[in-house]
Amino acid sequence: MTARTAATQDDLRRHNRARLLRRLHEGGAASRSDLVAFSGLNRSTVGVLVSELADAGLVTEVAGAAGQVGRPSLLVQPDAESAVVVALDLKVERTVVALVGLGGTVLWRKEQSHKRTSYTPQAAIRNVTTLTAHALRHAPPHAVWVGVGVSVPGTVDHVDGRVRLAPNLGWADVPLGGLVREAMNGKFGYAPAIEVGNDADLGAVAEHVRGVGASNRNLIYLSGEVGVGGGVIIEGRAMTGAGGFGGEVGHMVVNPQGVTCRCGARGCWETEIGRDAIIRAAALGDDSVEVEDVVAAAAAGNRKAQAAIDEVGEWLGVGLANLVNLFNPEVIVLGGHLRLIFPLVSGTVYRRIHYALPASREQVRVEVPALNGDSTLIGAAESAFEGLLTDPIDVVSHAHHAVAS
Amino acid sequence: MTARTAATQDDLRRHNRARLLRRLHEGGAASRSDLVAFSGLNRSTVGVLVSELADAGLVTEVAGAAGQVGRPSLLVQPDAESAVVVALDLKVERTVVALVGLGGTVLWRKEQSHKRTSYTPQAAIRNVTTLTAHALRHAPPHAVWVGVGVSVPGTVDHVDGRVRLAPNLGWADVPLGGLVREAMNGKFGYAPAIEVGNDADLGAVAEHVRGVGASNRNLIYLSGEVGVGGGVIIEGRAMTGAGGFGGEVGHMVVNPQGVTCRCGARGCWETEIGRDAIIRAAALGDDSVEVEDVVAAAAAGNRKAQAAIDEVGEWLGVGLANLVNLFNPEVIVLGGHLRLIFPLVSGTVYRRIHYALPASREQVRVEVPALNGDSTLIGAAESAFEGLLTDPIDVVSHAHHAVAS
Repeated sequence: MTARTAATQDDLRRHNRARLLRRLHEGGAASRSDLVAFSGLNRSTVGVLVSELADAGLVTEVAGAAGQVGRPSLLVQPDAESAVVVALDLKVERTVVALVGLGGTVLWRKEQSHKRTSYTPQAAIRNVTTLTAHALRHAPPHAVWVGVGVSVPGTVDHVDGRVRLAPNLGWADVPLGGLVREAMNGKFGYAPAIEVGNDADLGAVAEHVRGVGASNRNLIYLSGEVGVGGGVIIEGRAMTGAGGFGGEVGHMVVNPQGVTCRCGARGCWETEIGRDAIIRAAALGDDSVEVEDVVAAAAAGNRKAQAAIDEVGEWLGVGLANLVNLFNPEVIVLGGHLRLIFPLVSGTVYRRIHYALPASREQVRVEVPALNGDSTLIGAAESAFEGLLTDPIDVVSHAHHAVAS
Repeated sequence: MTARTAATQDDLRRHNRARLLRRLHEGGAASRSDLVAFSGLNRSTVGVLVSELADAGLVTEVAGAAGQVGRPSLLVQPDAESAVVVALDLKVERTVVALVGLGGTVLWRKEQSHKRTSYTPQAAIRNVTTLTAHALRHAPPHAVWVGVGVSVPGTVDHVDGRVRLAPNLGWADVPLGGLVREAMNGKFGYAPAIEVGNDADLGAVAEHVRGVGASNRNLIYLSGEVGVGGGVIIEGRAMTGAGGFGGEVGHMVVNPQGVTCRCGARGCWETEIGRDAIIRAAALGDDSVEVEDVVAAAAAGNRKAQAAIDEVGEWLGVGLANLVNLFNPEVIVLGGHLRLIFPLVSGTVYRRIHYALPASREQVRVEVPALNGDSTLIGAAESAFEGLLTDPIDVVSHAHHAVAS
């Protein structure tokens, strides 16, 4: 909820209640004094709002560590067993599913491989439905089910959850949000909030809320799966652009003399730092070669593998310098295969970033994800909690119990 | 003011009062019913807030056009003579100054040339002080003076108004905000809010508030003066990045085989579409040649001039496609010399933008500024009004009268 809509007393109360729950969800347990300091509200207002959240079952008050005067203070904590979401990360060759409780607790997690070629939208929906049923079997007895978050490696319309293009899945114009909703209603007779998002956008959210960018307001996350995607957080908010399609860093042209990209342009960044480019350049001569193998070969002294990785380092640096100049971020997080490559080429990358304008260059650091390979999965969970964190009481009162579903 | 701070009743009232004044300032006169519809507040609250703004002298109620039932409705309008700002646009070879009234009315405007080489920060400050005194002489008798906005072609720290680097002025690390404040205090015994901003950032604000992007939430403005700068509006807000240095599109590397830029990198966009590149490529053989002359020569059939402009068109398109993929904007506004070039190369530019991903490409249009050469000046005025539009009553009660200064 933005300030523009916080116009009336009711709005204000709902807004403040939501702010407190978001603080607890993102930052963990806090004393009432912490919440007073955080919110700028007075103590009695905080007390009323906390009671409302407790009555809704979302938070509990527990004895914290003893303070300096010896009396243990009460801590308000989000109850991970009160509200849950199902997060699904649809990758090119596997699906990851998790059941996540309020406060970000991963209650259950599972991976399942699939063949890229047979992973049609229909197959994916069947998969999503089955895995969601699995996940809900692990839900705590009293938990309400408030959302489903789905991560997709493609461009997604953030309004209706339609996948415009997921080239590496071979999907175009798939109304995934609607299909998931239908499937949930069909299977469970109920559908909570369904959020479909671009993988890199969700990775950015996760690393901003719970990862290496937790204390930063401006962050870029790069997903390196088959293509290279980007998610951008500006002043603490996800940049969507006009239709939710922004952040397509992989198709930034950096080398007009380079090779033709599957998008039709020449010299896209993705053609220089994408998985295929690395594997092709390393020429290890086997169809099943992965970036991990190239990294291992380079470590073992293979010259071609080393040269391939060095070349990626140069181009990685060129593109990152562009992003530094364009966005002036505090942190750039290298996800996917880039997190394997970066430690080997960090010197080259920083040398290239040095070409960015000093004011911006001095403020940026480059990191690998704190959430390792699960940034996009956790981001999907965060997106699924968004409704609850905007209007907790309303969402809880309309949600079904997870185990009944 | 963001929602995060709108925590108490007082905050809420101040916030809503400010929202109404901003609506009137940016959108012009409105009936009370319009304001009710706009704000979501009830009629009596709007009445109270409008009365408070009227008591502060900022708005008046006047008879509007007759409605369908024949009775003319009252219109609330911002009073251009109630509060004024001084806007200063420090360009490489001239300074533009304007006195602007609430609602965006330009009450007075003047240009003054200067030699690039002798335009030191000290000279600029003297200039700013003299021109401000000129401007204030044209202030309406009861107007309060609420701000000074300064546009600079360089990177500016948005917190303290320090110019980090303005290469084409030869300035580095100039605490311009502080110097202007000192000068104002010295000359007038008073300094209102002083805002220093990057020219392209301010151009973006102006075209978003009063120009071709008035109905858009996502806009990029390119300034083409000597270098090429960029200002980015995302979801209606100026993108600052960590330090206010974002949007440096001119130093996006697009051609690593290209020429070395004054920033040290090779193939920056600025080296392909900047003023110097155009003039050099056209080779009209005279030191005083301007982009206007190249455009005229091309129109008159000069092959070298035509080729130079065609080449700029290609590179302009390559870079714009990158920006479309990265930001997914609704509109890109080509300011400065680019607004002279664009009509000659729009076909080439759109052909190149066609390489951007379809979802984003379909949503974007490329425009020249509605405010012509004054986008940055008007943006400086808007920045100077920002304080008043955040807390009108407080600012008015502390401001000095313009004529007394």
